[in-house]
Amino acid sequence: MTDKIDHRLRGSWTADGADAAHLPGHALRWLRARTGLGEVTTPSAPSSALRVPDSALPESVVDELEDVVGEGHVHTERAERLGRAGGLSYLDLLRHRGIGELAVPDAVVEPADTEQVMRLLEVCVRHDVGVVPFGGGTSVVGGVNALRGDKFAVIALDLVRLDKLVSVDPVSRIAVLQAGVRGPDAERHLAAHGLTLGHVPQSFERATIGGFAATRSAGQASSGYGRFEDMVETLRVATPVGEWRLGVAPASAAGPDLRELVIGSEGALGVITEVGVRVRPLPTVRRYEGYVLDGWARGADAVRDLAQRRVLADVTRLSDVDETEVGLALKGGWQIAALRRYLAVRGIGDPCLLVLGWEAGDEAELRRRRSATLAALRHAKPVRLGRSAGESWRHGRFGGPRQRDALLDAGVCVETLETATHWSRLAELRTAVRGALVESLTRPGVTPIVMCHISHAYETGASLYFTVLTPRSQVDQLGQWQDAKRAACEAISPLGTISHHHAVGVDHAPYLGAEIGVLGVGVLRGIKERLDPFGILNPGKLV
Amino acid sequence: MTDKIDHRLRGSWTADGADAAHLPGHALRWLRARTGLGEVTTPSAPSSALRVPDSALPESVVDELEDVVGEGHVHTERAERLGRAGGLSYLDLLRHRGIGELAVPDAVVEPADTEQVMRLLEVCVRHDVGVVPFGGGTSVVGGVNALRGDKFAVIALDLVRLDKLVSVDPVSRIAVLQAGVRGPDAERHLAAHGLTLGHVPQSFERATIGGFAATRSAGQASSGYGRFEDMVETLRVATPVGEWRLGVAPASAAGPDLRELVIGSEGALGVITEVGVRVRPLPTVRRYEGYVLDGWARGADAVRDLAQRRVLADVTRLSDVDETEVGLALKGGWQIAALRRYLAVRGIGDPCLLVLGWEAGDEAELRRRRSATLAALRHAKPVRLGRSAGESWRHGRFGGPRQRDALLDAGVCVETLETATHWSRLAELRTAVRGALVESLTRPGVTPIVMCHISHAYETGASLYFTVLTPRSQVDQLGQWQDAKRAACEAISPLGTISHHHAVGVDHAPYLGAEIGVLGVGVLRGIKERLDPFGILNPGKLV
Repeated sequence: MTDKIDHRLRGSWTADGADAAHLPGHALRWLRARTGLGEVTTPSAPSSALRVPDSALPESVVDELEDVVGEGHVHTERAERLGRAGGLSYLDLLRHRGIGELAVPDAVVEPADTEQVMRLLEVCVRHDVGVVPFGGGTSVVGGVNALRGDKFAVIALDLVRLDKLVSVDPVSRIAVLQAGVRGPDAERHLAAHGLTLGHVPQSFERATIGGFAATRSAGQASSGYGRFEDMVETLRVATPVGEWRLGVAPASAAGPDLRELVIGSEGALGVITEVGVRVRPLPTVRRYEGYVLDGWARGADAVRDLAQRRVLADVTRLSDVDETEVGLALKGGWQIAALRRYLAVRGIGDPCLLVLGWEAGDEAELRRRRSATLAALRHAKPVRLGRSAGESWRHGRFGGPRQRDALLDAGVCVETLETATHWSRLAELRTAVRGALVESLTRPGVTPIVMCHISHAYETGASLYFTVLTPRSQVDQLGQWQDAKRAACEAISPLGTISHHHAVGVDHAPYLGAEIGVLGVGVLRGIKERLDPFGILNPGKLV
Repeated sequence: MTDKIDHRLRGSWTADGADAAHLPGHALRWLRARTGLGEVTTPSAPSSALRVPDSALPESVVDELEDVVGEGHVHTERAERLGRAGGLSYLDLLRHRGIGELAVPDAVVEPADTEQVMRLLEVCVRHDVGVVPFGGGTSVVGGVNALRGDKFAVIALDLVRLDKLVSVDPVSRIAVLQAGVRGPDAERHLAAHGLTLGHVPQSFERATIGGFAATRSAGQASSGYGRFEDMVETLRVATPVGEWRLGVAPASAAGPDLRELVIGSEGALGVITEVGVRVRPLPTVRRYEGYVLDGWARGADAVRDLAQRRVLADVTRLSDVDETEVGLALKGGWQIAALRRYLAVRGIGDPCLLVLGWEAGDEAELRRRRSATLAALRHAKPVRLGRSAGESWRHGRFGGPRQRDALLDAGVCVETLETATHWSRLAELRTAVRGALVESLTRPGVTPIVMCHISHAYETGASLYFTVLTPRSQVDQLGQWQDAKRAACEAISPLGTISHHHAVGVDHAPYLGAEIGVLGVGVLRGIKERLDPFGILNPGKLV
């Protein structure tokens, strides 16, 4: 599937030949009945209808850029620039449908290696041109929007050519990958050595190693493989003041861990060009299963117990009642009706789906780990759905983004947001965010769907991931979501982190100060002044 | 035992009433034969012989400091100031014996809470006085030496009164402790709630929560409980530009993780006053065992295998042949002779002691984890010594520092140093450091003992901890170790981190630039300028 994707094109997940997911008739009918969605169609505007200003870059600067990267690697054509205009947030998707203004870069530049990145930064400093490092372009928080800040022009620095496996150290289990390597390619490179990275966020098919690091990404198997920052051993970073290499040991007390500054720096402090990642042997056995627990409170307690006993499955994902209900409804069919009856008979009044997945080097290890998980889970009285429910989730795990075009065409407002907090505040946080979203999106005749799951659990807390489906306002399409997002952020801010794995970008910037304090913002500014004294890197993001 | 320690006094581990460990006659005889140590005694000079300059603080400033902390909490007397003059490195111990110059603070000030720390910093900024945050005073790298930098005076900011458990969140398993709480007191506070921190570095008996954070400490059970930075959830920091609170969730993508800047900041960026730590239930069962593996290479491979299979025991500690040999020799007795014969019969030519320790909530959990470890260990053909060997290590685990006075009295140069690197370079690093130390310390008639162990193992690498025992030079006592340490650092610098858990302090500062780069040093300076623009915090350390 990924072979079909032309990564040069963007504007939606599926605009470029990736398999689009269509929306089955019964699912659409259910959505209409459930939310009040009208029988509208709101197809995408042709891309020729989008307003794309001429490139502000003088020909002489384009020539200088081309001197660095070689002919054919600086693009100023409309389609290429449009393809790097923003990420894949709902707002960005609307903008690509002609609603609101797109921030379009003045050129797309594709360096081949770190040295070229360094030289490009020199050119951009000399001409005071902004630089947006661009990997998979999957940001859902405006992280790659081509804002100009105080610059007269901005380029998208597309790392697509930094697509190589640099080295493998099989003894230390470290692989160095260039920043532009995409998730599936990383796995393909590593599989040739019998290794895996195991980092599978929903953006896996498109997102890149550099992007994972720049945004502090967390994959769906984070319980087993860790968050991306847990995997980073070494970093190579190009900055306007020089090249920076970090990481000589698995752990160190040689001052603060500066790798943790680069991880999450969102292209505003430097361009990550290589990442040394901890890898593991390719699992040879895999088992995914579905369970149902009765009610969110019991479910969350069970996940907490697994985390605190340190027997989480590699994938541990608990859906709330709404998400479980929507999942069943969108599937439909007689099996689902039978399942509902079975759960009722088993005394499950508020079904919450728990997906557990284990991956291991052999059956014995898998058995050992699985039985530790299930032993701890027992007192939560899980009803077992079996492997097909788990496998069904696994096969659809990257499907969400691909369904958005069909939903947008059908007039649906569809977006996700996420947060995390400590266990003692998790219920309060969920209630607050849910309440804020529902209140903001409810209108006469319209009932939004707000569903939630835990997909990353820790000893001290967990993430919450919300998905919203509601009829799109035909009055103020951007404003509808901006208002809802603001309400959600204001609910999150006093109780949890403004982002567990989507990063700050533009959308979360107003809430960063509350989280890291005035001093934290000052510290980030101090670092930015050192590494990017001319302020060319990702203008308007992070700091 | 810890109840007996008067924490106000320092200069050696045992100068203040803590149980001193004497050196058995057979051990001394063995040391003499093995190293060429002469029959000298070099007892400590009386503390009255030490040169202590008068306090440079004007009475008016002392009064202002006292206005903040209250009467009786500003000390300018000789004994109190001497008690905060440096840490517990070999060089500091020599200085406390009258060899070389001690850096003595001009006053010792004991705030009661964060607010008082903030006000003290204001006073010190106003009068341009340096501030050395002082916890347990156990730094072995000069981290609490009262250097003045460009200040006319410096105070030791002793956090001894910040000794409270602030709060416990049993659901999230987070406890907030004030920075001055010592290891045993932290465990006592937590045990009342059925909880443990599980952080047991060798300095455990004296070192503090704030110090653990400021130095990126790692405990002997780091394989099970993690390094200290893995335990830190929240931080409260007093800086000259304001108070700073960090940490709202177990993980976050809201920009770089700024907690990782404070952890390892060594008092140079702010005074850590409270730390929220992840805690666990008190273990109810515990099992420590000794095994012997044949040769360092096989031993290190076995530990690597345990780490990469993620079945390490909570304590996993592999001694090299020299350390194993010294351990047996210093114990002595007929049992040891029998053990040597037994190992020879079992075909162990180069015995390397492996201590494994598991702690768990119940026997079933312990059994499950122990058998996973031992199953993976099997192919390394371990010879089991049983629980007494493990328990013997456990009981003596904090003994090292306490034996140093007796060794110093007997004319021994005794010091430790440590590093870490990735697995593929571990053998090379050990050989290089060992070689550098042996070469630097060997003189006619003198054969130094240089021994090594792995005590912290990770999937991608491990730490190496070296202990040196050699006859003390009677010509240049400081220079002897300074030369050896320099040789070791130069061997470490191209191959590993300059410190795995002792921090930078003064001793490692020359090597920090090579590890984090010119840009890294610049970044630290940029942060320092933001948080401590007047440069009052821990002058001469870290940046």
